[in-house]
Formats: sequence, structure tokens, C-alpha cells
Amino acid sequence: MADPRFHRRSGPLTLGAIAKRIGAVLVDPHAADMSIEDVAALDSAGPRDLSLFYDRRHTDRVQTSKAAAVVTTRALAGRVREGTQLLIAKDPRLAFAQAGHLFYPAPPVAAAIDPRAHVEPGAAIGPDCRIDPGAVIAEGAEIGPRCRIGANSVIAAGVVIGPDCRIGPNTVISHARIGARVEIGSCCTIGGPGFGFVPGPTGLLRVPQLGCVIIEDNVKIDANCAVDRGANGDTIIGAGTAIDNLVQIGHNVRIGRYCAIAGQTGIAGSTVIGDGVLIGGQVAISDHLTIGAGARIALKSGVCRDVAAGSSVGGYPAVPARRWHRQTATLGRLSARSQAAGAPEQRPGSTSGADEAEVPGGELMKEGAAD
Amino acid sequence: MADPRFHRRSGPLTLGAIAKRIGAVLVDPHAADMSIEDVAALDSAGPRDLSLFYDRRHTDRVQTSKAAAVVTTRALAGRVREGTQLLIAKDPRLAFAQAGHLFYPAPPVAAAIDPRAHVEPGAAIGPDCRIDPGAVIAEGAEIGPRCRIGANSVIAAGVVIGPDCRIGPNTVISHARIGARVEIGSCCTIGGPGFGFVPGPTGLLRVPQLGCVIIEDNVKIDANCAVDRGANGDTIIGAGTAIDNLVQIGHNVRIGRYCAIAGQTGIAGSTVIGDGVLIGGQVAISDHLTIGAGARIALKSGVCRDVAAGSSVGGYPAVPARRWHRQTATLGRLSARSQAAGAPEQRPGSTSGADEAEVPGGELMKEGAAD
Amino acid sequence: MADPRFHRRSGPLTLGAIAKRIGAVLVDPHAADMSIEDVAALDSAGPRDLSLFYDRRHTDRVQTSKAAAVVTTRALAGRVREGTQLLIAKDPRLAFAQAGHLFYPAPPVAAAIDPRAHVEPGAAIGPDCRIDPGAVIAEGAEIGPRCRIGANSVIAAGVVIGPDCRIGPNTVISHARIGARVEIGSCCTIGGPGFGFVPGPTGLLRVPQLGCVIIEDNVKIDANCAVDRGANGDTIIGAGTAIDNLVQIGHNVRIGRYCAIAGQTGIAGSTVIGDGVLIGGQVAISDHLTIGAGARIALKSGVCRDVAAGSSVGGYPAVPARRWHRQTATLGRLSARSQAAGAPEQRPGSTSGADEAEVPGGELMKEGAAD
Repeated sequence: MADPRFHRRSGPLTLGAIAKRIGAVLVDPHAADMSIEDVAALDSAGPRDLSLFYDRRHTDRVQTSKAAAVVTTRALAGRVREGTQLLIAKDPRLAFAQAGHLFYPAPPVAAAIDPRAHVEPGAAIGPDCRIDPGAVIAEGAEIGPRCRIGANSVIAAGVVIGPDCRIGPNTVISHARIGARVEIGSCCTIGGPGFGFVPGPTGLLRVPQLGCVIIEDNVKIDANCAVDRGANGDTIIGAGTAIDNLVQIGHNVRIGRYCAIAGQTGIAGSTVIGDGVLIGGQVAISDHLTIGAGARIALKSGVCRDVAAGSSVGGYPAVPARRWHRQTATLGRLSARSQAAGAPEQRPGSTSGADEAEVPGGELMKEGAAD
Repeated sequence: MADPRFHRRSGPLTLGAIAKRIGAVLVDPHAADMSIEDVAALDSAGPRDLSLFYDRRHTDRVQTSKAAAVVTTRALAGRVREGTQLLIAKDPRLAFAQAGHLFYPAPPVAAAIDPRAHVEPGAAIGPDCRIDPGAVIAEGAEIGPRCRIGANSVIAAGVVIGPDCRIGPNTVISHARIGARVEIGSCCTIGGPGFGFVPGPTGLLRVPQLGCVIIEDNVKIDANCAVDRGANGDTIIGAGTAIDNLVQIGHNVRIGRYCAIAGQTGIAGSTVIGDGVLIGGQVAISDHLTIGAGARIALKSGVCRDVAAGSSVGGYPAVPARRWHRQTATLGRLSARSQAAGAPEQRPGSTSGADEAEVPGGELMKEGAAD
Repeated sequence: MADPRFHRRSGPLTLGAIAKRIGAVLVDPHAADMSIEDVAALDSAGPRDLSLFYDRRHTDRVQTSKAAAVVTTRALAGRVREGTQLLIAKDPRLAFAQAGHLFYPAPPVAAAIDPRAHVEPGAAIGPDCRIDPGAVIAEGAEIGPRCRIGANSVIAAGVVIGPDCRIGPNTVISHARIGARVEIGSCCTIGGPGFGFVPGPTGLLRVPQLGCVIIEDNVKIDANCAVDRGANGDTIIGAGTAIDNLVQIGHNVRIGRYCAIAGQTGIAGSTVIGDGVLIGGQVAISDHLTIGAGARIALKSGVCRDVAAGSSVGGYPAVPARRWHRQTATLGRLSARSQAAGAPEQRPGSTSGADEAEVPGGELMKEGAAD
């Protein structure tokens, strides 16, 4: 079970109630009153827990699991050990996630503006908000009902935040219009100036950054991200999109709906991303590109050209995924053949210290005070 | 026009006044009294707006633009629609950016030390500063005149900040000497310890990090960056350099003047970067390298060797840009030929889940509670 | 010497006392009373300074150094200029780092809970802690003795922090159990929700993230990092591991003891890393992989498969380091041959703007307001 210091469990709930709430079918209606206390993985579930079986490669695990019941599909049900109750769902992972939220609902937060928060006179705070200590809400900002603004966060002048949003601690938001039910993690910067410069007589002059950031409903942005405002026009993040930690979104980028963008990815200025695009971690996407709806971009790709809707790409520079795999294989074969022929090796790193470090970054452990 | 919630427009201004302020020539002196209300892109400009035409590929757009006037070059002037006023500038993008700042000057900030800021007794604050709520200015810190220190930022003991600097909210600065007119965004860490360790009997021991960070005049550092102090000697960022979001600068790195470093780039310890270097996003530069003045480094390159002054490099490991393009083309051709010959493919990802995910990072959407 | 604004020097110390404290042998016992004032690099050391000589490539420098004494090995001692005192250590870099900490001990901090800190009634603060202004310690958090919590940091409900820890300013910690002598830099997020989603009827639904983060003794995490809590089970960082700036650790990742992870690296969900692994900067490691103990991963690698214990890998997708170097060399040769044969070039970037920008990311300096 989850550590009760951090996660407050609700329940118990009956199997029948769970089935109803998650839209699953309880195969044995006589089990509707069975009491379930928790959700757990197959291996750790006990006789009062609900678990998940969605992949036939886990058949061994479901056979030995002590779970009282599992959420699964009709197709997989036959692989479950006799005596385990069955909740049949079309998408068992979704249903099980919903069950998890039943047992571990978001903790209730008492509505209050902490007296140690700094709410400026001209700020408008909706009813039932929670504003934590040290948060700053500037003049002209509007916070919708039932929002939670974390400690030491800063909401700058004019920012509009819709109902039921959660802003983490130590986050800074300026030049932004934010919809309903948006969640933004801690230590984010939303609405900073874009990176557009022209060389001038006394150095680089920033091009005026006159747009803002539009974040639509149900967007989730995790921790330590930076989303720049538009230079001319706005930076837009479409409804339902989820963004992981440490992601950079450049100025005037437009991201569609229901995209998922993994950690440390960066999207350069004015690129347009369609709906339902999946982007792996540490991907870089160059500026002024178009990524079609439903595209998938592999971990750490460097995208320098447009990507067609529905396609999968990978590599640096990124190419269609099959071509990338083929290129990787080709290079491996040619290189092995070349070695057999006795060609000399070449090192990518600087040659200094070659005796100690076999790889770049091997310098890591060699920092003396002489450096 | 820019959203007035976030951007307060000044003006109107006459064409003559604008021309004078941005150093442009108004072709038709009779238009000097024409009133201009705003700056706008060619497509969205109205009959009281000033726009920009700097690229002949935009000839169609300038022909149909409703702009009252455009900033352009003498060479491009003939392509502008009859009746549009012409402001001729040597560098029209610079001139137009300057015009933008005329219409949208930085908002005035009332000088004040907010009573909710935490200014320690031994801190020295120059005249006409603005210190926002929750900011902490430690003993021995010196803040020059007319600085703005954002809410909940922390300026540690001994830090020196020159005149007219702007430090964003929730930023932490220690061990640093900062010049004039420096702008640092929100959620940055300046002056943290470098990543230098020696293995010791009870684990890794950090090598004493006894330097500081020197930031010269007119430097801009955007949001969520981390700049480490020197281990022995200082980390230096040269005058006029601009650094985007989420950039990492290692200890003892020395960056020249007027460089531009795009988002999520990392520069490892003790590397030296010359003046005017342009570095794309997500570039990694290894430690103890020298990057010559005026070099250009392509998006997402991994630089493991010195880079000659004035050269362009790209790839991982980075090579001269032309060679990189050639290598990319060569690999594509060899791979296509190999496919024609029927060679098998190889997948870069782990084979588990291969039926579901065609690309690494495709696991993104498959996280069940069983993970 | 180090800038006294930022680094308070202790001492002077005698050579004999230094030798004893760092476990070195002073070759000439008559020099035991010699007074040493500072540590310095060979080139900058003066006649009252201690320096380091650990690499025979620095023989010229040690010959001309004015240092009073050097820490070195028995094997290198013969290369030191006559008249320089010798401290012989098995690992001279470790010994010299220890000497540096003797001269520059961590500055003493007066124990106090600043009255401007926000310590909730139900929080438990151990003796002799220093809690800086604006820090928030929530109900149910437990802070061990002699900890320092930086200004404006937020320690959420239930978090446990062991003795002698240092948490930097503006850092946010939730859902975490932290051991002894742990150091966490500024602007970090520890314990945020992992990036696991299932598509649902109204968009992406986050899988309940029911674990926490376990940070063992003596771990160091530098600035602006994000460490997600486990989804089911915990995210674990093993004792003595050191993590650089801007690193992302996904949910359920388990990292062993005494690893070193350089800046901007990302480790995706559920990957397991053995003891003593060295990871260069900007590395991406995919999810659900196993990296064996003692492995070394080169700068900017993209790891898509398991890595064997003790091996060195590099490249994208990462392969054994020797194979990577060979592939790099092979591609260079084949490409040069292909050029000699007159094959056409291919550009990785979009063709627009090709006349101005030779490399992707060259758009950096071309941002007009028309973008």
C-alpha cells in the first residue's frame, strides 16, 4: 500500500461500487458486496486488493497473484487464476487508473487565503481558492474559483487563471491566459520573453515579445518547465495536452490537443504541433516546422524537417523510424566489415587524458583544483 | 495589437519621429506628420500600423498588407505597394525592433522596497530600486541603483549587482559579481557549486569550489538556467551575450561577448567560448574545449573537440557542417542500397513491447500502475 | 586566492597539521612547522601556498611553480623542483581536496528559525536547525537536527529529512524520505508526480502516483533538478550519489550508490542503475532499462538498451564505446569516398532560409516581428 505519510487512502469500497464507478463489468454479480481496501500491482497485491492484468506477458504474475480481483479484458479473462474476481473493461489500464483515483482522491484543501500570501489590492480571487504562504498575486490578476496557488508562486499582473486550476509552489506565471482544470507543477516559468534577438550597435537587442501564453483546459505541465510567450501572436498549448518536467516551449509555438511531451524536450520558436502527437524525452524540434497530427517522435530525436501526420520518426537528424533503424543497422554492418579489414579507429573526444577516459564526459571524476 | 492586459502601448507617434528615433530615412518627407499607432506583422497590420519588410520572399505579403508604412531596405523598396510609406534602414529588422520598443517601452516600476521583502541590515541597496515581496537580500550584498529584484528571489551574501539590472522572481544568486543592465529571468540558479568530485573513503567528495560567477554588462539570461561558479578562478559570461531558457553553464566556463546560446544547451566545465559564437538549442559541449570566435554550432550537436573560429559544425560527434550533411546523405544512400539487397533491420529500442511501440519513448502512454 | 567576499579562509595551518589531517606523509619532517596560508593551482600558487601535482603532463608547471609545497604521489615526487616540500598521498587529488576544505570550511550558520519562515504548527524541527526567511515547513514534516533549509523553499506535508542536510533556496520537496548529510541545491523539485498517463474520454488521465522518493545518505543533488516520485513503489537515489544541474529522474527509477550523473541528463521511468555508474552530460536513458554497476556512459548518449556492468557506451542509439568510435570513423571514411565520387549533398535542415543559415538553429538571429 502507499505510504500513509503521503497518500491518504479512502474506502474500503465494494467491488460492485468500483465496477460502477469505473465503467467495468463485474463477471460474478454475487461478488458485488466484496470489500476492497486498496489497489496494488499483481506481485504485491493481497487478498483485499484490486489489481490490473492487461498484458498476456504478465500471465505468470496473474496466476500467482493474491489479488482479490483484477481489472482485465474479456480476451485475457481466461488466463486469470480461478477464484480471482474479474472486472472486465474495454481499456483496463484506464479503468484501473480510475479505480486508483477512487482509493486515493486528491486530498481536500481548505479554502483560504493564507495571511502570509501577498495578494495585491487589485487582484481578483474567486471563491473557495487556496492561496498558500508567500504566494504573490499581482494587481489585475484574476484567479478563478476553487484554484490552489502554491507557496511562494508569483502570478504577475493581468494573468487570468480559470476555475479548478492547481499551480505548484515556486512557479512564476506572467503574460498568460489559462483555462479550466489546468495543473502546473513547481518551479516553472510561464510567459517569459522569447529568445529572439537582432544584433545592434550595443549588442543583441531583444525583439519586442508582445504576445502571451494561452493554456487551454485540462493541460498538465509538470515541474521546472519554461514556456515562452509569443513575440507576435501567442504561444498556445491545446486542451488536454500533458508536458513532463524540464521542457522548453519557445515563443509562438502552437501545440495541439491531447499531445504528450516527455521530459527535457525542447520545441523552438514558431513550430506548430498537431493534435495527439507523442514526443519522447530529450527531443529537439527546430523552429518554424510543422509536426502533423498523431505523429510519434522517438526519444532524443533531433527534428530538422516537417513531420507528416501519423508518421513515426527518430534519429538525428530525424528520419522515418524504419529508415532510422535501417541506417543504424547499416552503419553497424559497414563498421564491423571495416574493422575486419583493419581500418584505424578514430576517437570523438579530445585526445588529452585519453589514457584515463575512454568516453567524453569521463573527465567527470578527474576534476582537481588545478582545473 | 498586443493584448493590453499584458502590454501597455505608448504613442501614437509620427512617422517622422519614429524615423528619427530608429535611425531610418523617411522617403516621403511630406508624410512626417502621419500618425502611427502600433507595430504589426505584414498580414495583420492596419492602416495606422507600421510593419516590416526585410525578405523578398515576403513580397506577396507586403503587396497585400494594409500597413501605413513599412521599414525596409533601399534594395527592397521597389517591391512595396504604391501608397505605403517607406522607412529605409540599413538593418530593417533592427530598426523595426527599435520601433517596437518605442511603442511598448518597459513598463515603469515604482521604486520601493516592499515591506514584505527581507532585506538584511548589512545589505546595500542603491537608490530607486524596486525590491518585490518575499525577496531576500542577504548581509553584504550590494544592489546598484535602479535595479529590480523579483518576488521571492534570493540574493546571497556578498553578491554585487550593478546598476539597472532586472532579476526575475524566484531566482537564486550567490557567489556572483554582475555588471550593468543585466537581465536574469525567473527560477535561475547563479553561482551554485560546480560538479567536480573525487572519490573518497565515504563516497564522492566535492572539490572545493572557490571561484565565483562574473556576468558582464548587458548580458541576458532567460528562465530556469543554472550557471555554476568556478572551482578555481571564475566562470565568466561576456558582455552582451544572450542565453535562452534551461541552459547549463559549468564551472570555470568562459563565454565571450555577444554570443547567443539557445535553450537547453549545456557547456561542461572549463570550456572557453570566443566572441560572437552562435549555439543552437540542446547542444552539448564537452569540458576543457575551445570554441573559436564566430563559430556556429547546429541544433542538438554534441561537441567533443575544439571548434575553429568562424566555422560551422553539427552532428554528434560534431564535425564541420558540410561534412555532417554529407555523412547524413551518405548513410541514407548506403542504407537504401542495403535495403534493396535485403539486409535485415535492427531496432534501437529494447525488444520488449515491440509490438506496441515502434519508437523508444513510445512507452509514454503505456504506464499502468503495475509499472 | 579565493574572493573573500564569497569564501572565508581559515588558517594558516602548519604543513605537519595538514599532512596529518589529509592522511599524507610529509617527506621532510623538519618542515612540519612551516606555515601554509592557502591552496592554489600550480601556476598561481605563491611561496605560502599548497598546490597539487598529480599528472606528469604537468611537470613543466610544477617545475616553475612558486608553491611552498605540493601534494603528489611517490612516483611523481622526483619531478618536483628542489626546495618544494612534498606531501605524499596515495590519491593526491583526494588529499588536496581535503586540504581545500581545511582552508575553506563550510561557513558556520547560526541556528535559528527565522521569524519570517512559515513553520506550520504540526511540523517537527530538530535542534540547531537554520530555517531561512520565507521557507515553508508544512504540517507533519520532520526536519532532523542541524539542517539548513534555504529561503523560500517549501517542504510539504509528511516529508522526512534526516540530520545535517542542506536544502537550497526556492526548492520544493514533497513525498520524500531523505537520509543524513544530503545536499540539495536551489530551484529543485523533489517528489512531483511521474509522467504516466492513460488516454481517457476527456483527455489524458494521470495514473495515480502513489509512491515517494527515497534519498539515501550523503547524496548531492545540484540546482534545478526534477526527481519524480514513484507511481507504485518508490524512486530511489542510492547513498553517496552525486547529481549535477537540470537532471530529470523519472518515476520508479532506482539509482545505486556512488554514481555520478552530469548535467541535463534524463533517466526515464522504472530504469535501474547499478552502483558506481558514471553518466556524462545530456545523456538520455530510456525507460525500463538496466544499467549495470560501474558502467560509463559518454556525453549526450541516447541509451535505448540495457548496458552491461563495467562497460563503456556512447552514441545514439548507444553502443559499446569502441564500436561507436569505429562507426564514427567508418562513416567519415565512406562519406569522404562518396564525395570524391561526386555524390550530391543533402541538408538536414528545412530549405527555407538556406541562403542565410548554414546550420539548423541558425534561425536564432533572424527573428523579426514578422515571425
